[in-house]
Amino acid sequence: MIDQTLPSRVLENAVTEIAKLPGIGRRTALRLALYLLSRSKDSGLQLAESIVALVTETKKCVQCHNICEAEICQICADPHRDRTKICVVEDVRDVLAIENTGQYRGLYHVLGGLINPIAGIGPSEIQISDLADRVARLNANEVIIALPSTAEGDTTAYYVFKKAKDLNVQISTLARGVAVGEELQYADEITLGRSILNRVPFEISLKN
Amino acid sequence: MIDQTLPSRVLENAVTEIAKLPGIGRRTALRLALYLLSRSKDSGLQLAESIVALVTETKKCVQCHNICEAEICQICADPHRDRTKICVVEDVRDVLAIENTGQYRGLYHVLGGLINPIAGIGPSEIQISDLADRVARLNANEVIIALPSTAEGDTTAYYVFKKAKDLNVQISTLARGVAVGEELQYADEITLGRSILNRVPFEISLKN
Repeated sequence: MIDQTLPSRVLENAVTEIAKLPGIGRRTALRLALYLLSRSKDSGLQLAESIVALVTETKKCVQCHNICEAEICQICADPHRDRTKICVVEDVRDVLAIENTGQYRGLYHVLGGLINPIAGIGPSEIQISDLADRVARLNANEVIIALPSTAEGDTTAYYVFKKAKDLNVQISTLARGVAVGEELQYADEITLGRSILNRVPFEISLKN
Repeated sequence: MIDQTLPSRVLENAVTEIAKLPGIGRRTALRLALYLLSRSKDSGLQLAESIVALVTETKKCVQCHNICEAEICQICADPHRDRTKICVVEDVRDVLAIENTGQYRGLYHVLGGLINPIAGIGPSEIQISDLADRVARLNANEVIIALPSTAEGDTTAYYVFKKAKDLNVQISTLARGVAVGEELQYADEITLGRSILNRVPFEISLKN
């Protein structure tokens, strides 16, 4: 049904554009376009304006590359943050997730992507070249690699590790293990195996 | 993570607008917004422009209310269509689906929605008031109700039936039954039961 040309050129065009978004196929794109047509014209224009503002007005923090409103993001500008620790993350969602834990008061370094040779994304496509400079300038003593444990995440983590290992800083990564509240029998084998290999003194678990 | 305010007002605004689309939550909206930021500025602007064009330039056919470019849609304008049959459908996707079967050469009447009292959508919110006029003007002899068999679809179908039954036309609806190629054991009970009640002479099945 959806492969045939739509009855209107502007509808066809909108569906093609919406279907370029990740995880949205032509069928869903048509559903969304028809939804926009079923609403008031203003609500569609508001959506379009918010997208224009998004791509034209957002800035990236010149220090950590997080998305922000000013030259320097709130976290980098905050004098109470611990400037000796830099946490390397993929994107702003990871910053939000880590901030939400309330367990980290250091700075971030937002890569804006992961190395993915299959998709043609090399180290020069992500914001990594200035990490060494930042470590030196801040006189940081720890780089925390907080990347997803996927093929791309592991590749990127290893690249960051290679870049950072001559910088005289401690390089750490997130603990992998059974989730808090998770039953052992439902944990996957690799995670459970890793949580046994990397077991910690019992007293540490009492502190959190 | 996602309930906290985002670090940028324009990002927050874009996420709020994108999350108004059906089936898209704040988490997905943030993923889409970050995807737009990761692409070139032009591709975001193209998307926005296509949405503006969609809501400002599309017209509805003055006869059948299908989405089109001109005053009258291609189907209504086609002199080879059978003007004695009107198929009542929910939206343009259903028109495309039925056109794709190649089994129907009549006209359509696109309601643009279904009666849904819970969502506050009554008969006046959908394009139904002019159906009787069209039937009279075209001197049509059949109204085919092709609506989904959901609570809203059935309510709307019954409303259309009540409107049409004094018009001296045949009122038919789609056959419900076991799908072509489907195994009986996997058909749901109501559908299978309906397909037995509404069984057809075997010779008819040989024709299709």
